[in-house]
Amino acid sequence: MKILVKTLVAALLATTAFAAVPAAAELRGTALEVFKPLPSTTPAVADNPITPDKIALGKALFFDPRMSASGVFSCNSCHNLATGGDDNLETSIGHGWQKGPRNAPTVLNAVFNVAQFWDGRAEDLKAQAKGPVQAGVEMANTPDQVVTTLKSMPDYIAWFTAAFPGEEDPVTFDNFAKAIEAYEATLITPAPFDAWLNGDDAAMTEDQQQGLALFIDKGCASCHAGVNVGGEDYYPFGLIEKPGAEVLPEGDKGRFAVTNTADDSYVFRAAPLRNIALTAPYFHSGKVWSLEEAVSVMGTSQLGEALEPGDVGKIVGFLKALTGRMPEVTYPVLPAETKETPRPSGAIVQ
Amino acid sequence: MKILVKTLVAALLATTAFAAVPAAAELRGTALEVFKPLPSTTPAVADNPITPDKIALGKALFFDPRMSASGVFSCNSCHNLATGGDDNLETSIGHGWQKGPRNAPTVLNAVFNVAQFWDGRAEDLKAQAKGPVQAGVEMANTPDQVVTTLKSMPDYIAWFTAAFPGEEDPVTFDNFAKAIEAYEATLITPAPFDAWLNGDDAAMTEDQQQGLALFIDKGCASCHAGVNVGGEDYYPFGLIEKPGAEVLPEGDKGRFAVTNTADDSYVFRAAPLRNIALTAPYFHSGKVWSLEEAVSVMGTSQLGEALEPGDVGKIVGFLKALTGRMPEVTYPVLPAETKETPRPSGAIVQ
Repeated sequence: MKILVKTLVAALLATTAFAAVPAAAELRGTALEVFKPLPSTTPAVADNPITPDKIALGKALFFDPRMSASGVFSCNSCHNLATGGDDNLETSIGHGWQKGPRNAPTVLNAVFNVAQFWDGRAEDLKAQAKGPVQAGVEMANTPDQVVTTLKSMPDYIAWFTAAFPGEEDPVTFDNFAKAIEAYEATLITPAPFDAWLNGDDAAMTEDQQQGLALFIDKGCASCHAGVNVGGEDYYPFGLIEKPGAEVLPEGDKGRFAVTNTADDSYVFRAAPLRNIALTAPYFHSGKVWSLEEAVSVMGTSQLGEALEPGDVGKIVGFLKALTGRMPEVTYPVLPAETKETPRPSGAIVQ
Repeated sequence: MKILVKTLVAALLATTAFAAVPAAAELRGTALEVFKPLPSTTPAVADNPITPDKIALGKALFFDPRMSASGVFSCNSCHNLATGGDDNLETSIGHGWQKGPRNAPTVLNAVFNVAQFWDGRAEDLKAQAKGPVQAGVEMANTPDQVVTTLKSMPDYIAWFTAAFPGEEDPVTFDNFAKAIEAYEATLITPAPFDAWLNGDDAAMTEDQQQGLALFIDKGCASCHAGVNVGGEDYYPFGLIEKPGAEVLPEGDKGRFAVTNTADDSYVFRAAPLRNIALTAPYFHSGKVWSLEEAVSVMGTSQLGEALEPGDVGKIVGFLKALTGRMPEVTYPVLPAETKETPRPSGAIVQ
């Protein structure tokens, strides 16, 4: 495929002015072997039928700061739908002003990742949703208190009952997570790249198409493939050459902590690249603020190649074609607390 | 008026079963001398014509966490439109996990208050909007950095240009505040009480109408009057009997800090009571979590009367008729940072 793509790059470069379409069609054929456009419907998820009631409940939970012990943080605090589904911080600030260990990934299109978190330790979004709520440096809450909080508000009981019909005790931490997964599965952002994959030649500029060709040709697409242009599998960061400790801190061995296998040292899930232009800073460490620099780091560390600035620019141009149309979100109106609602506490429990 | 209303209460109590309407009409007449229904249109504000472009810009700014030094807090963090326009905390948690000195008031209908903050130190919403952004314990930012941040994002420059047409340098801290004021002026919540004032007898229950009659009769309406059922003028907290130091901390002398006048010791703006059922905990100290208790405290401290539980219940019933229809808010999509955007910093500068 590499030779074919090199030909494509050359063809694109040669035909830009007059007859780009045949080359574009050929590039599209190659791209469709590697990538997949987003579907136009909400994807199904395992063991969790998605219904409008469940989505509506999940949206309320996603935006509800009372799911945190302090009453300060909601899911949306670190996965802010106004700013690309993340928080634009190196690593998130959570309970007690503590800093999280890794950069918060975007929630947008996360349903298409093979697993969740940088190390894939949660198999899906419903497993992921239980993590930050309980993490001491994030929302610092407990499953029991989440359920007590939810059961203290009659509207939430009604919403859980509607979302999980036929269940005797629908307000559970499992169902809390399932509702959030259902909502998050709707957070899909079709992008110019999808339009282009679907046959609209004008959806990406010539430069972006050349960037795509380079992205495949240079080998980026070996790891960043599939519907999310990444997020499909795990790879060592520093495959060819380890980046400096600033970018790849020695103390964070990535997937090693999940599998306890030496081979998984400094292994991370390849970042899904949709909306990457909105989600600086980059890498699990959040230490790189410029997309150009991030692409260059990838060139040297993963491909063993110092990419030329012009090529970096074109690849970044292609990556910008992954910036999608944000879902329209009507901000929820949440139930009021009652006498039974546990009071918020910002205290730091060691 | 007091005697007239006492008659009204008696009339209401006597006629509940058969012929409430004449008494209700009389009560409405009295109520309209004290209160005013919300207007159906966005109110004009001083020196700041409200336009759709300005509202749209203001909404973006209201929800933008990059207006804070840390990148964690937006206006909406403490004035959360999902939870009654406040944060349901005793006092807000801000930059560096510091606690604010007073309970965050709701932003809903705040445009109708005579002045802003518990002590009225900001004459209007555009003056208020500049406060929390700069407060070290809240957003800990500076006007210069806010402007630098905004100017670093081309979309913001375009939005300011549209919102402030004809201005040579529209991206200013003053205009930032004006746009937020314009958005906040739209955050109006018509309630059953308004429908009732406007002539819909069925909009409030008999109990709520009795609660309203008591609210006027007992003297609550002497301070909590006008379109916001409060927020119109300043009164000593503990007019008749000072509540305990827990509820009225000695160190916070209220409006004294604004006017430096002995008479203004422990003087605060009477709380506007719209949506009060959504905005526990209560008082500037945020120390009282139950609305019933708050009404009782007011009875003893301001009216010198231990209200009977039945009366408290009816007054609370009336206060619940002040819970309005929340504005429908489409969550904004904010511009992405650029190379020029100042980086967030959670550092605490002393």
